[in-house]
Amino acid sequence: MILTVTLNTALDLTYGVPELVPHASHRVSDMSERPGGKGLNVARVLSALGHETAVTGFAGGSTGAVLRELLGSLSPQDAGTDTKAGNGATPADSTGATSADSTAPAAAPITDALVTVAGNTRRTIAVVDRATGDTTQLNEPGPLVTADEWTALLGRYEELLTGADAVALCGSLPPGIHVGAYAELVRLARSAGVPVLLDTSGEPLRRGIAARPDLIKPNADELAQLTGSREPLRATRDARRRGAHGVIASLGPDGMLAVTPDGIWQASPPAKVLGNPTGAGDSAVAGLLSGLVEGLSWPDRLRRAVALSTATVLSPTAGDFDRAAYEELLPRVGIEEHTTAA
Amino acid sequence: MILTVTLNTALDLTYGVPELVPHASHRVSDMSERPGGKGLNVARVLSALGHETAVTGFAGGSTGAVLRELLGSLSPQDAGTDTKAGNGATPADSTGATSADSTAPAAAPITDALVTVAGNTRRTIAVVDRATGDTTQLNEPGPLVTADEWTALLGRYEELLTGADAVALCGSLPPGIHVGAYAELVRLARSAGVPVLLDTSGEPLRRGIAARPDLIKPNADELAQLTGSREPLRATRDARRRGAHGVIASLGPDGMLAVTPDGIWQASPPAKVLGNPTGAGDSAVAGLLSGLVEGLSWPDRLRRAVALSTATVLSPTAGDFDRAAYEELLPRVGIEEHTTAA
Repeated sequence: MILTVTLNTALDLTYGVPELVPHASHRVSDMSERPGGKGLNVARVLSALGHETAVTGFAGGSTGAVLRELLGSLSPQDAGTDTKAGNGATPADSTGATSADSTAPAAAPITDALVTVAGNTRRTIAVVDRATGDTTQLNEPGPLVTADEWTALLGRYEELLTGADAVALCGSLPPGIHVGAYAELVRLARSAGVPVLLDTSGEPLRRGIAARPDLIKPNADELAQLTGSREPLRATRDARRRGAHGVIASLGPDGMLAVTPDGIWQASPPAKVLGNPTGAGDSAVAGLLSGLVEGLSWPDRLRRAVALSTATVLSPTAGDFDRAAYEELLPRVGIEEHTTAA
Repeated sequence: MILTVTLNTALDLTYGVPELVPHASHRVSDMSERPGGKGLNVARVLSALGHETAVTGFAGGSTGAVLRELLGSLSPQDAGTDTKAGNGATPADSTGATSADSTAPAAAPITDALVTVAGNTRRTIAVVDRATGDTTQLNEPGPLVTADEWTALLGRYEELLTGADAVALCGSLPPGIHVGAYAELVRLARSAGVPVLLDTSGEPLRRGIAARPDLIKPNADELAQLTGSREPLRATRDARRRGAHGVIASLGPDGMLAVTPDGIWQASPPAKVLGNPTGAGDSAVAGLLSGLVEGLSWPDRLRRAVALSTATVLSPTAGDFDRAAYEELLPRVGIEEHTTAA
């Protein structure tokens, strides 16, 4: 089982509008609602790849109840609800992989191990201008998490670690959670001998790295914020010196740069693609973790991560991946080994 | 008891953002959640004026459950929940009248007589740019209402009419409801001998007027759409000839023009005011209906409607009214009687 932790889960709403005009009134023409937060997105992709997963973190209030209901209904044919204007009750196809393939593994179950909190799970709203495809994002603040709720999470996490092959710690911290929370979770995973990937930003990332996670997966902005450098190789090496055993920098259309104990690799997608990058980073995390658990080599893990994130950009639904594109891209990802020392 | 009907209720969310920038990501800095839809707003103001009210219409799904919970908690000190960033659990003061006054009547109870439907009650989101105060509105479509649900509403409505002194039919129609629905509700109220005010727009207004409601309260745009004229007196008279016994045209900062069987009056606020006009029309409906039930003269009803809607524009919270401003404005509303025949 692969465990993902999402301390700040979200009920993700997508609103389509004909055209977003500030200060005007808009009728939402189409909408969808799905369980969100980075770790939940990672779990959905892992499930589509055939990996059994468990998700923990916090959920509460009426929005948390809807999130858990949608999470419980995730299956190959049903990974959320989509409603068209005028019809509030029609579930539509929406799965981790948008185009099924006879060679695809069956989706594996996702176990809901979320901890209930008193506050309301936040909503995020992606307003998609259907004229241009551009997205305007509105993110509610998360619920205030109490000390007792954090203690409950730690207990649940330690139980789950006993059955986990790997763990991903994902996303922002809700109000009330101390900035060293991820460092604490990294140390517990290391003590339990479970490989741990940390995907966050800012001070929680800085503190978390010092606890020596197996992997971090910063993007260019997160790396620059952490190290002060926008030169990929320099920044990635610097990040590794701060404590992470391996650093996989995601460089958007330029692919990924991996600085690991075993060497340095650059992985590049076969071609630049246009689409919605939402969720591409989460798909990359799923690719890296599943490859680790399957014992793949670094080049094969990177191929999978790059192919999955490119196939996510190509998917018409934000955060899903196009399985046919993934399988077509996988053998075509370019891998170049750096001969300089890490 | 005054009855209000809101066929397309809404869970109204207000999101404050430092500045709304299309295609960017925004952290919501403050948010509030309240039961919405025009008839619910009217009921909240009637309650603050001391009038016992009942609300019917449709509510369903998780959003409908939250709406009803918030509606149930409406009281002089608690008419919704407001949360600041980072604190999901703090209820704050929010009532129909924003500043209590020792001479103010106690808020009267609002009875929840909503009919449960299978679909989800829609959300509306008002994104307020805190730099400029401008609002961008996003309105979900309503739930699909079935024929059986409509029949259940008709039964509930007829029961409620037996105890009603007046009824207001408010707002848009959800999907599934036939365009002549308001005409049907107007006829039932007329048969029951209950004065009925219709506040809607477009084809439902056109059809509803033909069923001869006691009052309609169109704004300038709704009047122009109905009659083709933007000349207030001409358009208001034309609307009356279509079947409404009385037409109260709300002309925004110019006040109201009333064309009634008893005469024609123009009511004007003492001064132009700046603020948020959201809910001003609903406050006017509450002023007109409460005045009717209390047996006030037309000039006094109009004074109350104009003072309430002006005090709503002045309130810092959309849809609430500033009671101190209301009481100060009331005797200063200008009333001019037209000497020409209606």
